Amino acid sequence: MSARENGSVGSVALIGGGPGHPDLITVRGRQLLTAADVVVADRLGPRALLDDLGPDVEIIDVGKQPGHHPVPQSRINEILVEHALAGKRVARLKGGDPFVFGRGGEEAEHCRAAGVPVEVVPGVTSAISVPAVAGIPLTHRGVAAGFTVLSAHTDIDEVPGGPEHTVVLLMGVSGLAATAATLASGRRGTDCPVAIVEDGYGDGQRITVGTLGTIAADAALRGVRSPAVIVIGDVVRLADPDLVDAPLTHQRTQTHQHRLTHHHREAQQ
Amino acid sequence: MSARENGSVGSVALIGGGPGHPDLITVRGRQLLTAADVVVADRLGPRALLDDLGPDVEIIDVGKQPGHHPVPQSRINEILVEHALAGKRVARLKGGDPFVFGRGGEEAEHCRAAGVPVEVVPGVTSAISVPAVAGIPLTHRGVAAGFTVLSAHTDIDEVPGGPEHTVVLLMGVSGLAATAATLASGRRGTDCPVAIVEDGYGDGQRITVGTLGTIAADAALRGVRSPAVIVIGDVVRLADPDLVDAPLTHQRTQTHQHRLTHHHREAQQ
Repeated sequence: MSARENGSVGSVALIGGGPGHPDLITVRGRQLLTAADVVVADRLGPRALLDDLGPDVEIIDVGKQPGHHPVPQSRINEILVEHALAGKRVARLKGGDPFVFGRGGEEAEHCRAAGVPVEVVPGVTSAISVPAVAGIPLTHRGVAAGFTVLSAHTDIDEVPGGPEHTVVLLMGVSGLAATAATLASGRRGTDCPVAIVEDGYGDGQRITVGTLGTIAADAALRGVRSPAVIVIGDVVRLADPDLVDAPLTHQRTQTHQHRLTHHHREAQQ
Repeated sequence: MSARENGSVGSVALIGGGPGHPDLITVRGRQLLTAADVVVADRLGPRALLDDLGPDVEIIDVGKQPGHHPVPQSRINEILVEHALAGKRVARLKGGDPFVFGRGGEEAEHCRAAGVPVEVVPGVTSAISVPAVAGIPLTHRGVAAGFTVLSAHTDIDEVPGGPEHTVVLLMGVSGLAATAATLASGRRGTDCPVAIVEDGYGDGQRITVGTLGTIAADAALRGVRSPAVIVIGDVVRLADPDLVDAPLTHQRTQTHQHRLTHHHREAQQ
């Protein structure tokens, strides 16, 4: 039965859940999540919010859990449409922003093609908010006037500028050695600063700082793993030194589950 | 009196207010705004939230209103520190994200140097969420695998790739002709699609689509003004045609004050 024949078609909200902290979803996102009949959730994103849903809400977990077979994107698209055509208010809870490496564009297209109303609720992207955990702004007057966001190493040989143009890599841990070498061969050079922020708002939060020349070895030594956001450029010098682990001196792991970003309490010491 | 001498130093929260819609602030941002003694507000951002503050909250408007003398950044930095050192909980409400062209890094540095605790609350950046108003994702499988965000035309001659690498320009209306010509001279060419979204979540929302070869003339004809976000690349082809004004055929102005992004109701026509 098509939506046109069905008088009680539901809807799909593609909700950017932000970088994982439950309070970094938008007010609108939380409203639509609370009002949903069905929630389709990813592995990344603010999963703690799922615990607050009412008992009648159906939760469909399509997250790619390590060791489990992931739900293919085509099936996710079908799940959204099937429930909406059955009259349900469907909330698709995604990590970060739906339109930044979130495949939200594909999900929106699929819903539209099936005649399902879609609302896109933008979210706080990890590309910006995870570097902020370390106190790193992507732009800063006199330091950086623009930034480029890439996943893995697509386009990496054409990234503009030098260390004054910030580069953010998502899903870049496994290809880090090659990426760093490529960027170092350009105007950035081997001394260009690099920071890796693992598990930005989670229990495994850890910040590693090095340079394009050292970061692959630093990351290997420390066992850096996904999910992680990698920031490259002079803005890394603005990182809060209290939060950063010097890679070769100590292996302190930071766990700031309840701290949103970083507080500075020098005045109270 | 320094913060160290003052036992009751307050705090500063640098809050990303999102692109203007009051429900696109984060839950954490709204919490801190509600709890503040002093709110320091910009011209852009979710100003409707100021109406909901309690009668005892002091609102300091440092927004650069057209025709009025703006408050210099150095004075804004001082205002934040002065009130925090007087023991106040200060909420600095900014448009978008504080660390993307928001000068949040400078404000954080100034507070830290004065011994004032700072919390940075990331926000929904206009660079991503305003294109979403037109249905344009910055990345899309098979269309674009990365994006670059610039203000005005800094670095414009070094922007990577061709139309498959998305470029977002903030504060780019006045320099549009030169920027478009520069980008067209590279691998993008004059046929590369461009969209301009004016006043993303406000009453003056309007979407103009053209190409690098036509957009400067299109924008002049239609009187495009700031604030506007300009998106360049093949992702513009994914814009929702129902929302876009063809520049030379009709001059419909869209006002969707209560609509968050875009709904598709083909099924209900």
